[in-house]
Amino acid sequence: VHLLVVNCNTSHEISETIDKNAKSVASPGTTITTVTPTWGPASAEGFLESFVTAAAVLDTVACYQGDVDAIVMAGFGEHGREGMRQLVDVPVVDVTESSAYLAALVSFRFAIITTLKATIPGIEMSLHQAGILDRCSEIVAIELPVLQINEDVEATVNALAEAASAPLRRGADAIVLGCAGFAGLDQWLQERLGVPVIDGVTSAVALAEVLVRLGKRTSKRGPFAPSLAKRWTGWPVSAAPRQRRLPISGAIA
Amino acid sequence: VHLLVVNCNTSHEISETIDKNAKSVASPGTTITTVTPTWGPASAEGFLESFVTAAAVLDTVACYQGDVDAIVMAGFGEHGREGMRQLVDVPVVDVTESSAYLAALVSFRFAIITTLKATIPGIEMSLHQAGILDRCSEIVAIELPVLQINEDVEATVNALAEAASAPLRRGADAIVLGCAGFAGLDQWLQERLGVPVIDGVTSAVALAEVLVRLGKRTSKRGPFAPSLAKRWTGWPVSAAPRQRRLPISGAIA
Amino acid sequence: VHLLVVNCNTSHEISETIDKNAKSVASPGTTITTVTPTWGPASAEGFLESFVTAAAVLDTVACYQGDVDAIVMAGFGEHGREGMRQLVDVPVVDVTESSAYLAALVSFRFAIITTLKATIPGIEMSLHQAGILDRCSEIVAIELPVLQINEDVEATVNALAEAASAPLRRGADAIVLGCAGFAGLDQWLQERLGVPVIDGVTSAVALAEVLVRLGKRTSKRGPFAPSLAKRWTGWPVSAAPRQRRLPISGAIA
Amino acid sequence: VHLLVVNCNTSHEISETIDKNAKSVASPGTTITTVTPTWGPASAEGFLESFVTAAAVLDTVACYQGDVDAIVMAGFGEHGREGMRQLVDVPVVDVTESSAYLAALVSFRFAIITTLKATIPGIEMSLHQAGILDRCSEIVAIELPVLQINEDVEATVNALAEAASAPLRRGADAIVLGCAGFAGLDQWLQERLGVPVIDGVTSAVALAEVLVRLGKRTSKRGPFAPSLAKRWTGWPVSAAPRQRRLPISGAIA
Amino acid sequence: VHLLVVNCNTSHEISETIDKNAKSVASPGTTITTVTPTWGPASAEGFLESFVTAAAVLDTVACYQGDVDAIVMAGFGEHGREGMRQLVDVPVVDVTESSAYLAALVSFRFAIITTLKATIPGIEMSLHQAGILDRCSEIVAIELPVLQINEDVEATVNALAEAASAPLRRGADAIVLGCAGFAGLDQWLQERLGVPVIDGVTSAVALAEVLVRLGKRTSKRGPFAPSLAKRWTGWPVSAAPRQRRLPISGAIA
Amino acid sequence: VHLLVVNCNTSHEISETIDKNAKSVASPGTTITTVTPTWGPASAEGFLESFVTAAAVLDTVACYQGDVDAIVMAGFGEHGREGMRQLVDVPVVDVTESSAYLAALVSFRFAIITTLKATIPGIEMSLHQAGILDRCSEIVAIELPVLQINEDVEATVNALAEAASAPLRRGADAIVLGCAGFAGLDQWLQERLGVPVIDGVTSAVALAEVLVRLGKRTSKRGPFAPSLAKRWTGWPVSAAPRQRRLPISGAIA
Repeated sequence: VHLLVVNCNTSHEISETIDKNAKSVASPGTTITTVTPTWGPASAEGFLESFVTAAAVLDTVACYQGDVDAIVMAGFGEHGREGMRQLVDVPVVDVTESSAYLAALVSFRFAIITTLKATIPGIEMSLHQAGILDRCSEIVAIELPVLQINEDVEATVNALAEAASAPLRRGADAIVLGCAGFAGLDQWLQERLGVPVIDGVTSAVALAEVLVRLGKRTSKRGPFAPSLAKRWTGWPVSAAPRQRRLPISGAIA
Repeated sequence: VHLLVVNCNTSHEISETIDKNAKSVASPGTTITTVTPTWGPASAEGFLESFVTAAAVLDTVACYQGDVDAIVMAGFGEHGREGMRQLVDVPVVDVTESSAYLAALVSFRFAIITTLKATIPGIEMSLHQAGILDRCSEIVAIELPVLQINEDVEATVNALAEAASAPLRRGADAIVLGCAGFAGLDQWLQERLGVPVIDGVTSAVALAEVLVRLGKRTSKRGPFAPSLAKRWTGWPVSAAPRQRRLPISGAIA
Repeated sequence: VHLLVVNCNTSHEISETIDKNAKSVASPGTTITTVTPTWGPASAEGFLESFVTAAAVLDTVACYQGDVDAIVMAGFGEHGREGMRQLVDVPVVDVTESSAYLAALVSFRFAIITTLKATIPGIEMSLHQAGILDRCSEIVAIELPVLQINEDVEATVNALAEAASAPLRRGADAIVLGCAGFAGLDQWLQERLGVPVIDGVTSAVALAEVLVRLGKRTSKRGPFAPSLAKRWTGWPVSAAPRQRRLPISGAIA
Repeated sequence: VHLLVVNCNTSHEISETIDKNAKSVASPGTTITTVTPTWGPASAEGFLESFVTAAAVLDTVACYQGDVDAIVMAGFGEHGREGMRQLVDVPVVDVTESSAYLAALVSFRFAIITTLKATIPGIEMSLHQAGILDRCSEIVAIELPVLQINEDVEATVNALAEAASAPLRRGADAIVLGCAGFAGLDQWLQERLGVPVIDGVTSAVALAEVLVRLGKRTSKRGPFAPSLAKRWTGWPVSAAPRQRRLPISGAIA
Repeated sequence: VHLLVVNCNTSHEISETIDKNAKSVASPGTTITTVTPTWGPASAEGFLESFVTAAAVLDTVACYQGDVDAIVMAGFGEHGREGMRQLVDVPVVDVTESSAYLAALVSFRFAIITTLKATIPGIEMSLHQAGILDRCSEIVAIELPVLQINEDVEATVNALAEAASAPLRRGADAIVLGCAGFAGLDQWLQERLGVPVIDGVTSAVALAEVLVRLGKRTSKRGPFAPSLAKRWTGWPVSAAPRQRRLPISGAIA
Repeated sequence: VHLLVVNCNTSHEISETIDKNAKSVASPGTTITTVTPTWGPASAEGFLESFVTAAAVLDTVACYQGDVDAIVMAGFGEHGREGMRQLVDVPVVDVTESSAYLAALVSFRFAIITTLKATIPGIEMSLHQAGILDRCSEIVAIELPVLQINEDVEATVNALAEAASAPLRRGADAIVLGCAGFAGLDQWLQERLGVPVIDGVTSAVALAEVLVRLGKRTSKRGPFAPSLAKRWTGWPVSAAPRQRRLPISGAIA
């Protein structure tokens, strides 16, 4: 099983965090390749960056050469997921919905802790589209920019633990870590808080493996069917694709 | 990893179907024990049977002696799931929500095909409670009683394929098999229909393994916290439990 | 008119409170029989106890011998109501929905005061299923276990009055007493708070009388139609039913 | 118990139908007074007529001289109900919500049959505001104007029976008669269709009696509190009120 | 372009405020006529006054003699809008929905500041019916009666600015002025708060002009089609209409 | 007033259609500049093309040099609108929401006719996000690719008229043209169908003018506040921006 994990920003440090955590839960026999877009913002925090990064992520996958069995989208609350499901026919598993589904299996209502308040509307839209927003009691932000997460891990864990207390007091009984950059902090936080703490990257890797194992692929009958062949200009943006191995929907001239 | 799979009716034939299919997807190192309630209806089709069976399933687990790492509830659309999550602290994975979450990952809108029309409201309630009802375009029934599924497998597959055509034409792009008794028919149907077909038992087993692997247990902070110690009469119904090994919430006198 | 009122737990003290209050509002010509399940928890507070008690209540009615014109389910927010509507064809009136409907007729938004926080999700589900949740502004708990209600009535009334103040300040303009054990406290509280205070048992008895008087019975066309004849094992649990007079749906072997 | 039943149009024939049916279910000791607005349309079918009639009904009650214990609003789906609840402090029971609540107690999903398609949006708004719209599967019209209902009762019953068949086939399991002018036809139709058929006028009378018997009055704490004293011009429209006995909210100069 | 602006109460002072502000934004070539109902309350604050005023406004327009190209309803959150759309076939633009739609174009979530708490439910209903309630984060009241707004404009602006701070802190990023009497205060408040502040009267005038310019009229195919010809009594209330020039739906005898 | 109208695909023919229709309704004193992205698909029909085009449209505006008073996004149902609102501080008016708001002012429920079925989910998401989806009765597709609209205008009008009949019969009373390429066909169709027919481009131009005239700009307090200064790579994609005159949110290195 070969999983292609796509970071949603241009920061290689974040890609490394994602890659390390994705590999930490991969089953024997699963190989992980983590890729980083070549253009776009260093972190995606809010609508503008999210829409730019959505295209950059699609571009990255459109240019990837190699066989993959499933794609993991490692941007919490970012746009573009449904576009990816139209682009390829292997399973596409997004960290947002994955962590929400798993949290829903071990709790009654989960809360999400994210980085900046600016990312909250995107997370809400993503969960709404995934159909699981009703299980989320609230989304809170620690107002720590993504790019500062790794500067002081202990401070980050402390901020997450502190931020979790109000939602837990108001009725949540599990926590979802609302940023791919938080990958690896779930176990620490789970022990500290005494409730399930769910991380997106590891959730998505595990669910991608499940879908491959059960022989499921993205449906090509409805809105994810290939689009009509038509003229495209300057796309994919990042490079001239030669030997694309991923099933690409539509003809790109 | 030891999974306890609980059938929701008293039919050992259905338990065998469930057991065979659960084992067919279990990872190496996972052992499956499938148990059958000792009281209740031979199949659960509708509100009355569902509420009786919910208590019988809780009773079955309350009396089970042995270590388990997760519980799989193998009754599609049946009641009792939230009660089980209060009874134990290992993960509880229900076939209804499991197949819905996986279907939501590979399609835009899924349809469910169930046995009798009488089971549809229970399935709707279960999906609503799981928070995923919005992703379901419709639920249709083939009007084949659960106990007749295995009498003629070919006829059952034909009935399922026929029943799938209208929802697919009306916009669904994946099918969920809405009865634990349909376990094992998903691959056949998937090939025939050309869309993802998701089965509950295999989905739930795979998700239960994921939760155990990721170290997640049912939250005991909210509504699934143990209930107050109090006097119980005649419970568990089926037998005097001596050496319960499952963490039981509340004191039972 | 003969009403069968079913307590949802095994506490005869609570059955007596229910019985007394049911009789206090019964019209001339109405007789009330209050019955108590022979198995299950002494009080139903949360999911586990609610699902067990649902079956015990169904069992109690399935074994009842005598003609009844309507059934009153006296467990606030407990499961099983739709199963009872499939079991019998006389009207089934639940204290939860009854008090909510009457409160909706005399207020704009009502709040519910219940015993333990653990019962809140069940109440929400019951009101959602009854279709009236939107009229409820909030549900608050006084954290007094059901079994302690009668220990000190004055303290209970004080706790209810105190608990009502915040919801009233936040916009509710009526109070529903969210536990059958609170029966009889509505008038006291109504005078003290100056807003309508609605009790479930008296509401349900009055609505059951109305349905009988208007000649309405539970519909047997949809999900409440009798289930298919099939093999049942060990049911009804509590006793061998000999001369069932209630119309029972389905064949029970 | 004295109930004031207010027709919502200026047709005395319809008032007579309403009056006869209201009296047919009144308990011993209940007296019914049915009043007719002195201005407005002969029947209320659609938004324009509904908003005019809402004011005419409020005007009628504001001018009524005599003690009443509750008010029954006998216009199915008409506007003004919340205004009436602010005008008086006795219970205000509307035929729309009353029949819906009772139907919800004896069925899973009810359908409404009304006169003209033009009345459907008003009915939907009324049920939405009453919080019970989710229990209504659909509203269908027989395209028979209100004023022609009594011309040929047999034809009307036939039209209702015919109109009921499609909703029942599509999943409804009870019928609500969606026009006060249909009062008295429910028993006939119930026998013919074999499902509960609920009429608004009789439902509202029975519920008004229940509220009076249980000692409940319209809450005066929230939006139904009396409005500020202020200058009114030309109101009440129909006559100079001298000895108003109903508690009137606000000061009217 | 001739716009008929209808105040919803009998206060000529408020009509003057509305008229002045309507004219302040009218395009060259647009003439504004502002009319005042001859009966009803001096201000509409709550359900009772809103339902009376709805009929008075319909009456005012039914009696208006002159050609108009569109009607502006200048009562924030008042009832009757859909009745007006049935009465005439020119566009009907209500200040409530107009300001909400424009606010939705320049913000993510807007809050509404209104006069009295009693008006909040009516505003919610109006926005719900207009389909735009989801974009409103909350509605707050300054508890200043409509008739005191103009007594001290500076105090009113201060009260509005103060009332806006909590909703802005809780997530709103624009403010809608929820009373036609606030017309003219939006620019002051916008400068003070640094977020878009939207006024209903100017919004509605601008949208009415747009609809006229684009050649759109109220649809007469659905619920706004003329009602059936029938007998009306005492209507229009205020005067015998002689030369009605507005297209009136239905026959009025 | 200078409006920047952005086509959402790379087809200059469609840009010309948009430009012509935008100019046809512009007020005296308004100038229109229509721009075309330099990369992406020739038409946006479905998720993949929509997410790519969203970034291309943001890129186009980020590189535009010149003062503009408002931006019109001329892609019906396309993604990116909220990103644009973060990018600039002038008003951003999207054809989807504009036509929906205007349709909501002249009808009870509008239907949308679009090109391909593949575009329907995107339109639904856009209307949901705009908060106006509830007013839309349904969205139907004529299965005519965007790029073939102008090949035979008469055939296109016929297809639209034919496609409108079913939604109108099922309850819609106005039509929204769900593709920017349909601009200019609304008047023809309106005459033919006898109901309001609303076009997105002209609606958006008119609403953009209104917002400028009323002095409203995009709120910069909430999710549309500028994002944090951070490192961007390879952005804007299409060209090195030198003298950006539009207020750009965030720092782009």
